[in-house]
Amino acid sequence: MTSAWLLPEHIADVLPSEARRIEELRRSLLDAARAHGYELVMPPLLEHLESLLTGTGTALDLRTFKLVDQLSGRLVGVRADTTPQVARIDAHLLNRVGLTRLCYCGPVLHARPAAPHATREPLQFGAELYGHAGLEADLEVLDLALDSLRRVGVQKLVLDLADARIVRGLLAGAVLDTARLEMLYAALAAKDAAELKQITAPLGAELRDGLRALLSLYGGDEVLDAARRLLPARPLITAALDDLARLAQHARAAHPEIGVGYDLSDLSGYAYYSGARFALYAQGASDSLLRGGRYDEVGAAFGRNRPAVGFSTDLKLLVQHVREDGRKRAVLAPWTGEGGALRDAVRALRQQGETVVCVLPGHEHEVQEFDCDRELALVDDHWLVRPR
Amino acid sequence: MTSAWLLPEHIADVLPSEARRIEELRRSLLDAARAHGYELVMPPLLEHLESLLTGTGTALDLRTFKLVDQLSGRLVGVRADTTPQVARIDAHLLNRVGLTRLCYCGPVLHARPAAPHATREPLQFGAELYGHAGLEADLEVLDLALDSLRRVGVQKLVLDLADARIVRGLLAGAVLDTARLEMLYAALAAKDAAELKQITAPLGAELRDGLRALLSLYGGDEVLDAARRLLPARPLITAALDDLARLAQHARAAHPEIGVGYDLSDLSGYAYYSGARFALYAQGASDSLLRGGRYDEVGAAFGRNRPAVGFSTDLKLLVQHVREDGRKRAVLAPWTGEGGALRDAVRALRQQGETVVCVLPGHEHEVQEFDCDRELALVDDHWLVRPR
Repeated sequence: MTSAWLLPEHIADVLPSEARRIEELRRSLLDAARAHGYELVMPPLLEHLESLLTGTGTALDLRTFKLVDQLSGRLVGVRADTTPQVARIDAHLLNRVGLTRLCYCGPVLHARPAAPHATREPLQFGAELYGHAGLEADLEVLDLALDSLRRVGVQKLVLDLADARIVRGLLAGAVLDTARLEMLYAALAAKDAAELKQITAPLGAELRDGLRALLSLYGGDEVLDAARRLLPARPLITAALDDLARLAQHARAAHPEIGVGYDLSDLSGYAYYSGARFALYAQGASDSLLRGGRYDEVGAAFGRNRPAVGFSTDLKLLVQHVREDGRKRAVLAPWTGEGGALRDAVRALRQQGETVVCVLPGHEHEVQEFDCDRELALVDDHWLVRPR
Repeated sequence: MTSAWLLPEHIADVLPSEARRIEELRRSLLDAARAHGYELVMPPLLEHLESLLTGTGTALDLRTFKLVDQLSGRLVGVRADTTPQVARIDAHLLNRVGLTRLCYCGPVLHARPAAPHATREPLQFGAELYGHAGLEADLEVLDLALDSLRRVGVQKLVLDLADARIVRGLLAGAVLDTARLEMLYAALAAKDAAELKQITAPLGAELRDGLRALLSLYGGDEVLDAARRLLPARPLITAALDDLARLAQHARAAHPEIGVGYDLSDLSGYAYYSGARFALYAQGASDSLLRGGRYDEVGAAFGRNRPAVGFSTDLKLLVQHVREDGRKRAVLAPWTGEGGALRDAVRALRQQGETVVCVLPGHEHEVQEFDCDRELALVDDHWLVRPR
């Protein structure tokens, strides 16, 4: 037996003080995106399962709530990620020839939480730039990500860079069955040197040494130099290292206050990304606040495989890193009754952006949730705002 | 065989021009609610089925998507209406002694569309006032509803008033089995005089004549006078008619531009409302833009049966009645490269609220989605905005 007011695990209400801050975040982020020329779209919560999951790998499949649409009898899913939806919009609804810049902000649902303490209902904000294969698109999206977090007041950001082309470049031409490949990815993701040594033992020297070297390739700028020494000089790998150096240089020039690091064995989302990837952390935090990068394959399932770069973040996580701004102030007013001068005074204050709380009859002595530091009072036949 | 980009029936993407207007509506409505002292809450999309459906009647049950939560094995639902959730928050999470004013804005999902052309994913905005049984609360909520629609620029509103106490007052003391009661409600809802005549034939004269009179009690102010003549002078009925007169008077005083009408046999949501009810229509439209009223029973399932008045509206419907504001203007800028004076100029414009679209290399001659009526150009070594 459970009570009607208990919520499912990893699901929570957002109460007034936090909801207000999330709404402010939401507006700042959407304003930042718009200032950069990103147009808002609102894809639906519900889609046919094959649209939601095409080309995204099994992780998203396991995270997606499925249900049967009684109108069609078909299996539909509640979106667990908005990026594939926005790719579909770019590919089919807009189908523009030139660059397309889109952003979105809305809830997603996860059948299983992404982390032990994660919500199953993140409020996802993200931006995507379609149609440009050059690094300038990566730089623009990284700029928008940094500008967005700066606007909402996240302090002391650390930028973490990686590139999906490095492992891909190492493995190019290697003959590995799927099972061994999965084991290899798992060992790299877990940074398990012993396991990696065993898996890579039968491989050729260049590949074996390259994969083993990856585990040590994390840290500051020295990582790029070390990578050029330790990894084979193949075109994909060299291009990746050059791009990462330029991304770091650009980010530092535009935002001198951030820290920059690299983790070349980081494989998060490897099924998804095709080029440079970035994550932003609050200094000292272990969960990333925002993740993005290049995923040129994302539109393929919708018949339009064009270049794409983007990022996303969860406002419910982000709000924990934004400073509170104190209680919200308001003006207390008597009940306006049937109208007249008092109603006009209240209306004028509200149109100026003030919160005016009217005291309903019988509730004169209640504590207000708002910080009513002022009141509307009748002074010499005029309704005036005065301190309380 | 269907294509990956086809959406389920009654489900649609919201594309940029409409999404932008919906976002503007959203901000205006939330600002209106805040100006009236209503605090934002964000209840989850997903809840245990018994919390979502308690006390709301079968209509909402049939409209709710159900799924099994793999974490608990329990049946959960995606909310089809936010009001019961907000009542739960008032009853359990906040549990304040005094008045509580709450508002919300977020998507709901309907397993079946509410009308032949309705979306199954309305974007619901609403406000609720808990803890005041007097008509002042009804008046305040009606004020907020009218103020909200005025702020977003809906022209020529018609206020339609009804009251759940009238049918309830007529039926008080009558012995009717459930089947006959359902038939009676259906006949009233369909305004089916022949059917109503048949069902009410075995009833006492006062009840029979009262119920039959209801069908003619719609129209302007004359309806209230006619009701006083035609309906029995029972306390519930008299109170309802008095309250409706006062609501109309108040609405006209505060918003002289609106039309006011009554429909005393209107039974929409009869399982839900307990007192005065109102609906707002755009003149000439048959679907209401906003519905609200008093539903004092809404918190009962959560153990706190206190007075409640509120309303809700669907932004996707509302946006169709709001005038378009033309294409959005922007400044076109060259690609900022690695930074310097150009980057600073772009950043300053964006911080002033301008949209600045950077031209990425290779895309110099594309048509922009934004109306780029100005450009950033280097004039005498300074980056200046000039008309294009």
